[in-house]
Amino acid sequence: MADYKELWKSLDIDLEKHDQLCAVLPEFYGEIYMEQKNRPEGMNYFNFVVSEIHGLRIQELADMKKEGKKVVGTFCVFVPDEIVLAANAASVGLCAGSDFWHPDGEKVVPRNTCPLIKAAAGALVGKTCPYFSSCDMLVGETTCDGKMKLWETFKQYTPMHVIDLPNMKRDQDYAHFKDEIRIFKERMEELTGVEVTAERISDATKLLNRKRKALQRLYNTRKSDNPPISGKDALLITQIAFYDDPERFVQKTEELCDELEARIEKGEGVFSKDTPRILVSGTPMAVPNWKLHHVIETSGAVVVAEETCTGVKYFQNLVDESASTMDEHYENLTQRYMKTNCACFTPNTGRIDDIIRLYKEYSADGVVYYTLPFCTTYAAEFNSVKEALAKENIPVIMIETDYGLEDAGQIKTRLEAFFEMISNK
Amino acid sequence: MADYKELWKSLDIDLEKHDQLCAVLPEFYGEIYMEQKNRPEGMNYFNFVVSEIHGLRIQELADMKKEGKKVVGTFCVFVPDEIVLAANAASVGLCAGSDFWHPDGEKVVPRNTCPLIKAAAGALVGKTCPYFSSCDMLVGETTCDGKMKLWETFKQYTPMHVIDLPNMKRDQDYAHFKDEIRIFKERMEELTGVEVTAERISDATKLLNRKRKALQRLYNTRKSDNPPISGKDALLITQIAFYDDPERFVQKTEELCDELEARIEKGEGVFSKDTPRILVSGTPMAVPNWKLHHVIETSGAVVVAEETCTGVKYFQNLVDESASTMDEHYENLTQRYMKTNCACFTPNTGRIDDIIRLYKEYSADGVVYYTLPFCTTYAAEFNSVKEALAKENIPVIMIETDYGLEDAGQIKTRLEAFFEMISNK
Repeated sequence: MADYKELWKSLDIDLEKHDQLCAVLPEFYGEIYMEQKNRPEGMNYFNFVVSEIHGLRIQELADMKKEGKKVVGTFCVFVPDEIVLAANAASVGLCAGSDFWHPDGEKVVPRNTCPLIKAAAGALVGKTCPYFSSCDMLVGETTCDGKMKLWETFKQYTPMHVIDLPNMKRDQDYAHFKDEIRIFKERMEELTGVEVTAERISDATKLLNRKRKALQRLYNTRKSDNPPISGKDALLITQIAFYDDPERFVQKTEELCDELEARIEKGEGVFSKDTPRILVSGTPMAVPNWKLHHVIETSGAVVVAEETCTGVKYFQNLVDESASTMDEHYENLTQRYMKTNCACFTPNTGRIDDIIRLYKEYSADGVVYYTLPFCTTYAAEFNSVKEALAKENIPVIMIETDYGLEDAGQIKTRLEAFFEMISNK
Repeated sequence: MADYKELWKSLDIDLEKHDQLCAVLPEFYGEIYMEQKNRPEGMNYFNFVVSEIHGLRIQELADMKKEGKKVVGTFCVFVPDEIVLAANAASVGLCAGSDFWHPDGEKVVPRNTCPLIKAAAGALVGKTCPYFSSCDMLVGETTCDGKMKLWETFKQYTPMHVIDLPNMKRDQDYAHFKDEIRIFKERMEELTGVEVTAERISDATKLLNRKRKALQRLYNTRKSDNPPISGKDALLITQIAFYDDPERFVQKTEELCDELEARIEKGEGVFSKDTPRILVSGTPMAVPNWKLHHVIETSGAVVVAEETCTGVKYFQNLVDESASTMDEHYENLTQRYMKTNCACFTPNTGRIDDIIRLYKEYSADGVVYYTLPFCTTYAAEFNSVKEALAKENIPVIMIETDYGLEDAGQIKTRLEAFFEMISNK
């Protein structure tokens, strides 16, 4: 990695602490990613992105800022990036996936908080994440109690805007969210000084739809009876989608897809054809949280899809591009974003339909229901998901685990038993 | 207690399991309540209410139902009882305060759920609470993630209506809540067949304001430098207010207040004058959760007020009685209910003002910040409360504890040290 010390210093990063993080990541990534067999060539770009995770992209953001562009940090797939881009700002996803940040996080949020929130808190207050430090504004939302309260803490440190996501999906709730998009647009204009016109939203929508389509194409290759890419690699790509330059990301992902589709034609896959196929469903996995996928794929199964925010929820629905007025844009964005079946809504029965549909589309053999500890909404939905899957004769196992590696062996044992069971079905 | 077996049977109560509960409560209550010294005579009524907790009041509800009245169960101070009463229905608070219900609760909600929610879940699905069984409809709200998800489970067992409480307190959120009251009114009319007229809401408002004023009068006596009633007894009265017949409750509470005010004139108190005075702030305490108050008042301090839903939040704000149209009623109810500073709102800085104001009004010497485990919102607010209190030089200690008695000794030790510290200030 090039020397980014000066850059980090200019971002007020705690260099000493940050060095500890930088020292661990390459080895961690190497063990989990580089030792995989039969990896596609196209993964080299994503290896490079990870190797430069706090370097090149941070430099790019710094260069943009020098040109007067603003950078906005987000934590949720409900934040309409179309508005961010239309305001000529860059958007970076800031959810944090390592317990490296927990000790700092616990200074400002309760210990019994979900690892993702605690890590994000620690990354901000400990000044050990240059993405946080690059942001001119953070954008939160009222998806869950823990995040809602986190923004109150963050407001003491940095400019914040909170989008009020409704709790239900009735007509009045759609209208409410539409109004929230309008408010967000005004806040973005205030931040950037750029007028968010209908035309600018159209352009942003087209770009982000292209990103979604590239990810859809990628995920489609996983439907093959011999997936040409591991679940771990696919997860990584979706994670990177949250913060990489969108144009380059699309290009590199399309290139990878060309290779993957050629592999399918040649019958080349990453695992053997009889490997049990797993649909992962549940809470998001932020970089570098690759734990569950790694355990699954080193225990005799392959992850073929994720019904998560770092999976299909991020890209499965496109925004209608036909809008020409602001109101039509707000309406189309509302319709697209409110389609997402998050456990933060009540009721959220659409998620069960999604899981069953994905299970079938990806020819999965079983579902691993994943929750981070203290994620009340996803943990609470397990019972109804389990009941619905039982009726469809779909095997499911729940794994609740944080970012620590202490329980990896125990999870492996449970999963191996599960995979054996579904293989014998 | 009279024999209510037939009554319980008619309510489909699990008699055997319910007997276990009935066997424990009198002894538990006896130890905690009957051994207090210098209790006011007027507490006899409330002793009687507890001794008949699953008897006489359940019989009354059954009698009402025979006459065609409906019974509605609620879980939150944001449910406008004015609408329930105006629809000629009875309202009973159903929050549950014993771990007796946890094993049944854990069958339908995650173990890592707050004890209050888990107990309510267990009381319903285990069929061991005749209040639940007496209800023709339950009314939930979207206050926290845990409760929001609980209603989805409850819907499988019983008719439910969920009031969508907004996440913020902007103008549009007031309008949203006003609309929720209108929707709730329609749902109540549907349930009862009674037209909720402006006049009927006026009558209900007057009755409930009288209840609030009686509780305000009760709490005012605790401001005395020698409180004529223990915190434990005051808590019990507020708890009973949630399910007792409102007219009778007002009468009995007013009678008690006559006695308490006479005691103050005579200089009679429950503890000695130099006893450290504690403001409890935090999560609600449902019957029979008297644990924290009991530990505090057997460790050398007295609770003088509760900044909780089973404390001042329940009654400190009256509803404006001047409305004559439905819209005016909706507006006045909205204004009153939205005043409540619950941790479910973001931001919720008004709660800090409440705590500081109550600390001064009740001449408290310290604050015990109480949270039930897994109550994300109240736990998260502790840091900002602590900071604000430090600026005011107000001592505070946080106690996070569930319904189990295992940690009572440890809490006692911590609190004794805290009381010693604040006594020496």
